[in-house]
Amino acid sequence: MTSDPFRIGLLGHGTVGSAFAELLEERAGAIEAEVGLRPELSGVLTRSQGDFGDLLERSDLIVELIGGTDPARDYVLRALEGGRHVVTANKQLLSQHGEEVFDAARRGGVQLRFEGAVAGVVPAIRVMAETLAAAHIERVHGIVNGTTNYILTQMAATGASYDEALREAQEMGYAEADPTEDVTGKDAAAKMAILARLAFGAAVRLDQVSYEGIERITADDIAYASELGLSLKLIGSAERINGGVAVHVHPAFLYADHPLASVNGAFNAVTIESPAITEITLSGPGAGGIQTASAVLGDVVSAMIPPPSLPPPAVEQPIVTDIEFSFYLHLEVADRPGVLAQVAEILGMQDVSIRSVVQKGLGEEARLVMVMHPVLESKFRAAVDLLSRLDFVREPPRVIRVIEETF
Amino acid sequence: MTSDPFRIGLLGHGTVGSAFAELLEERAGAIEAEVGLRPELSGVLTRSQGDFGDLLERSDLIVELIGGTDPARDYVLRALEGGRHVVTANKQLLSQHGEEVFDAARRGGVQLRFEGAVAGVVPAIRVMAETLAAAHIERVHGIVNGTTNYILTQMAATGASYDEALREAQEMGYAEADPTEDVTGKDAAAKMAILARLAFGAAVRLDQVSYEGIERITADDIAYASELGLSLKLIGSAERINGGVAVHVHPAFLYADHPLASVNGAFNAVTIESPAITEITLSGPGAGGIQTASAVLGDVVSAMIPPPSLPPPAVEQPIVTDIEFSFYLHLEVADRPGVLAQVAEILGMQDVSIRSVVQKGLGEEARLVMVMHPVLESKFRAAVDLLSRLDFVREPPRVIRVIEETF
Repeated sequence: MTSDPFRIGLLGHGTVGSAFAELLEERAGAIEAEVGLRPELSGVLTRSQGDFGDLLERSDLIVELIGGTDPARDYVLRALEGGRHVVTANKQLLSQHGEEVFDAARRGGVQLRFEGAVAGVVPAIRVMAETLAAAHIERVHGIVNGTTNYILTQMAATGASYDEALREAQEMGYAEADPTEDVTGKDAAAKMAILARLAFGAAVRLDQVSYEGIERITADDIAYASELGLSLKLIGSAERINGGVAVHVHPAFLYADHPLASVNGAFNAVTIESPAITEITLSGPGAGGIQTASAVLGDVVSAMIPPPSLPPPAVEQPIVTDIEFSFYLHLEVADRPGVLAQVAEILGMQDVSIRSVVQKGLGEEARLVMVMHPVLESKFRAAVDLLSRLDFVREPPRVIRVIEETF
Repeated sequence: MTSDPFRIGLLGHGTVGSAFAELLEERAGAIEAEVGLRPELSGVLTRSQGDFGDLLERSDLIVELIGGTDPARDYVLRALEGGRHVVTANKQLLSQHGEEVFDAARRGGVQLRFEGAVAGVVPAIRVMAETLAAAHIERVHGIVNGTTNYILTQMAATGASYDEALREAQEMGYAEADPTEDVTGKDAAAKMAILARLAFGAAVRLDQVSYEGIERITADDIAYASELGLSLKLIGSAERINGGVAVHVHPAFLYADHPLASVNGAFNAVTIESPAITEITLSGPGAGGIQTASAVLGDVVSAMIPPPSLPPPAVEQPIVTDIEFSFYLHLEVADRPGVLAQVAEILGMQDVSIRSVVQKGLGEEARLVMVMHPVLESKFRAAVDLLSRLDFVREPPRVIRVIEETF
């Protein structure tokens, strides 16, 4: 059985564009199975190659990943007015000409989706749109620029100066050769304008957002803040106030209990506050071609078919019960020579390998607190069973799992 | 102009049910404006009052908040087979009879939504459903029980024993008089079965989830973990492994850089891992009548109309530029008597009130590092301008905003 095609015209073939083309190919089968339409690239237009009018004719949906306002604005307007859905990750376009493109989409009776424009893989736009009807949003706080968050995180962790941390970010690929848009806060300001539009229905343009960057932050500021229990982030805020809205981007200290205080490295996060929900915080990688491409592809699928309320019928799959974990093991033992060696030997016989160990004497007794490398639970349990029978083990062994970040 | 009514039959009038009825009344106008249908309660059925068949006749959608499997299962099946949408927050029903109710919804051609069943206000179900098409989910980790997270957070913060922390949680209303379902991990296991069903399409029943609770956790375990840089949480995990799926709930230590390590108190959080997106973490209050009611109302609105891709036309609203912030101020001053008094006086003249101050001598010079109570930015800037002109202020004052949690 062959499904009808769903033809996607791609504008732009840079980092995100090429990642999108790859991801689309990889996921086309799964999407066809779910949606009943076969997504396919109808063509790729770059600044130097291809004819837009021609590509438009052959497309049901346009993915705009050129960036900037010119010629993206013209292309997007023509696509929408021509009755094509548009998915874009273009924050400049939306923060400077948002009402114009929203109007064009409304007139064209088509969808305009832009999850990739704001916070990488973090689905802030969707969650906000779907939260809105049930809750009155009062405030949105965001860390919406991964470059600056990476720099500030490094400054806090290593005591580096701003210049040193920026250079490192550039070497790591987290900052561009010309980092101006990021470090001045302008990139974050554009994103906050878009979030404010969605949260409050106010047509906030980029030039109405006051923003301040991180270029003048010193290692001293961060050290002092740390003494006061604060962490420093570049925070975008949008809030209802005095019958209007205020939208700002600025470096800010956060108390440790703020949900954004623990967002580190090149991550993005958005906190949505409303009396009914208290708050929802969403976080994830902020940039990167593949991550933005995946947000864009999510939008494409949503334009093909509304998100289903039901999962598809279940598929028979085995339930695996014996899997690998890293374990913590706490033993109360008699404090005499050779105890640790014997414990280690028994663990080793079951292929359990010790990652770290702390031993503390307590008069006659000692405590062994160990963390293991990952091992099948059945093997670890067998080892613990053997250990619990040793005469020098004074109390039942205590076992707790340990979970690490895997990337 | 009067819109057509959209009639909602409510089953259950406990904490969540009554919060839902209130929230619906409060938000009915906003929902009508957005959706074009006027949501109204067609009736409320409790265990002791009302006739289900009669209520069903008068309803377009049934909100099931009775909990448990009997009579909830019968009601939900009858509603779905009778062609009514159903919104439920019933984790027992979905984790024990999920396939049966999903099939009934499919046969009835209606929607079944259950965001409130898993993680309070955290929109894990939506995000997962909408992420699925574009990304292959490999693993889901969750803190999906607020009661146990509150208890573990208190044990870590105060050194309290499990019994003490449980008692406090009961006094604070975070734990029930009979906390068994929560502290044994059974509640979390039901939620993880639902998440695994959605993430992997595997029909995982509650009795296939291995779970372990927090009853045997000691203050010692937590203290040792803290020495090792770990924090202890009750973690649900669902992952693809060896061609099958594994679903577990158990106490686990997390390294500090894990996105769930900083989720404290009665909060819930879910981390979705996929190669294409790396990870998305969602967090927010886990329980509470109003929060669950708001998740339920969000589902009701989604059943009334698919989430729009476009925001409604913008409404004219003033952009407010001068707003209150709490500020951090760093002054390098000459170290001589009366300096702090004079600084404080100038701040006071502009209604800027000092919240905390650290003064450090450095030979001839001193540093004043202050955090202010919230004040209008214009007033603070005026005060800083005056301060910068004082002869004993040696360098331009350094200013950074401070953001606190507001609830």
